[in-house]
Amino acid sequence: MAKIPENAKQVFEGEIFNVWQWDQKMFDGSMAVFERISRPNTAEVFVVVGDKIIIQRQEQPDTQEFLSMVGGRIEKGEDPLDGAKREVLEETGHASDDWELVRITEPSGKIDWAIYVYVARDAKKVAEQSLDAGEKIKLEFYTLDELIKLVDRGDLSYFDHEIRIDLIRAKYDPEIKKKWEKLLFTA
Amino acid sequence: MAKIPENAKQVFEGEIFNVWQWDQKMFDGSMAVFERISRPNTAEVFVVVGDKIIIQRQEQPDTQEFLSMVGGRIEKGEDPLDGAKREVLEETGHASDDWELVRITEPSGKIDWAIYVYVARDAKKVAEQSLDAGEKIKLEFYTLDELIKLVDRGDLSYFDHEIRIDLIRAKYDPEIKKKWEKLLFTA
Repeated sequence: MAKIPENAKQVFEGEIFNVWQWDQKMFDGSMAVFERISRPNTAEVFVVVGDKIIIQRQEQPDTQEFLSMVGGRIEKGEDPLDGAKREVLEETGHASDDWELVRITEPSGKIDWAIYVYVARDAKKVAEQSLDAGEKIKLEFYTLDELIKLVDRGDLSYFDHEIRIDLIRAKYDPEIKKKWEKLLFTA
Repeated sequence: MAKIPENAKQVFEGEIFNVWQWDQKMFDGSMAVFERISRPNTAEVFVVVGDKIIIQRQEQPDTQEFLSMVGGRIEKGEDPLDGAKREVLEETGHASDDWELVRITEPSGKIDWAIYVYVARDAKKVAEQSLDAGEKIKLEFYTLDELIKLVDRGDLSYFDHEIRIDLIRAKYDPEIKKKWEKLLFTA
C-alpha cells in the first residue's frame, strides 16, 4: 500500500529514513505536493529453542530498557531470509535449519516499509553474540503462554501488530493457540 | 518514548515529515549519527450516533478505497481536542457535547508521533461535510459488534493498534465488551 510512486523524487537521504515527494493531482484537478518515507525493511523472528521462544531484553544508547523479538534491519540488496538469519546469529548466536515465513506486514500507509516475520524452529547455539557498539542485548526464554502474557500486558508493543493481535486471539481461542503451537514447535 | 532529543538538529523539513539527527555516544564511547522523524500528531475519534459508530469509507488521490475511523492531523499549536472536534465537523458534519479522551498512543520508537483517541458520544449532525480536494469520504454506521468484526477481519488496519487489540479482546471477553459499551454509549 505504501509503495513510493514511480514519478516521486527523493528529496532527502538520511541514515535510516529517505523522503520522497511528488506532484499529485487532486480530485478537483488541482495539484498538491504529496510525501512519503522509505526505510529499510526489517525482520522479526520467533527463534525457538526447545519449548521456549527467545525474547531480547535490550538497551540502545538513546532508550530505556525494552523487550523485543529477535531481528533487525535487512540491508540494501540483502535477501530478507538471509538478513533474518544474519540478525539471529549476531544477536543470539543461534542458527536453525527449519525456517518459515509467517507473514509480511506493511504497517504504515505513509512509509514504504515491510516487516518480514519468520519462525526459526529448533534453533541451536552455534556461536557467541556479536553485538555492535549500539546494542546491549540479554536473551530471555519464554514459553508460548508466557509470550502471550507479555503481549497481553503490552510489554512487546513494537512487535508486529498483526502478530500481537493474533497472539491475543490465542489467549482466548484454543484453536488459534493450537495453530501457534504447531507453527512454532512442529515442522 | 520517541521524543526528539534536545541536542538534535533538524536536517529536513517536509510537507508532513521532519527529520532530526544527533551525535550519539555509543556503549563503547564511540560516536554515531542517530536519526528520528517527527510528524504531526493525529486524532482518531469514535463518533457515536445513536447505537452506531461512524466509520469512513475513504479514497485519497493516491490510494485505493479504505476504511478508517474519523480523524486526521492536529495542526501545529492546535489543542488535540480542538483538532479532533474540527476533523469530526469537517469530515462528518457532526458535533458532540460529550467528549472523552480514551488513550494516547505513541506507535513508533523512531517517530515522534502521538495518536489521541477520543470518544464523541451522542453526536448530532449540525452541518454538511466540508472536504478538501484530497478527500472523498462516505460515512457508514456500525454497531459495536459490527465494528469488532471489521477489526477482526483486518479492515481497519491503520486504526490505533492498541485499540484494535482491545476490540479483539472484546470479541472474546464479555467484561471487556461491557467496558466498551459503557465507554461508547453512556456518559
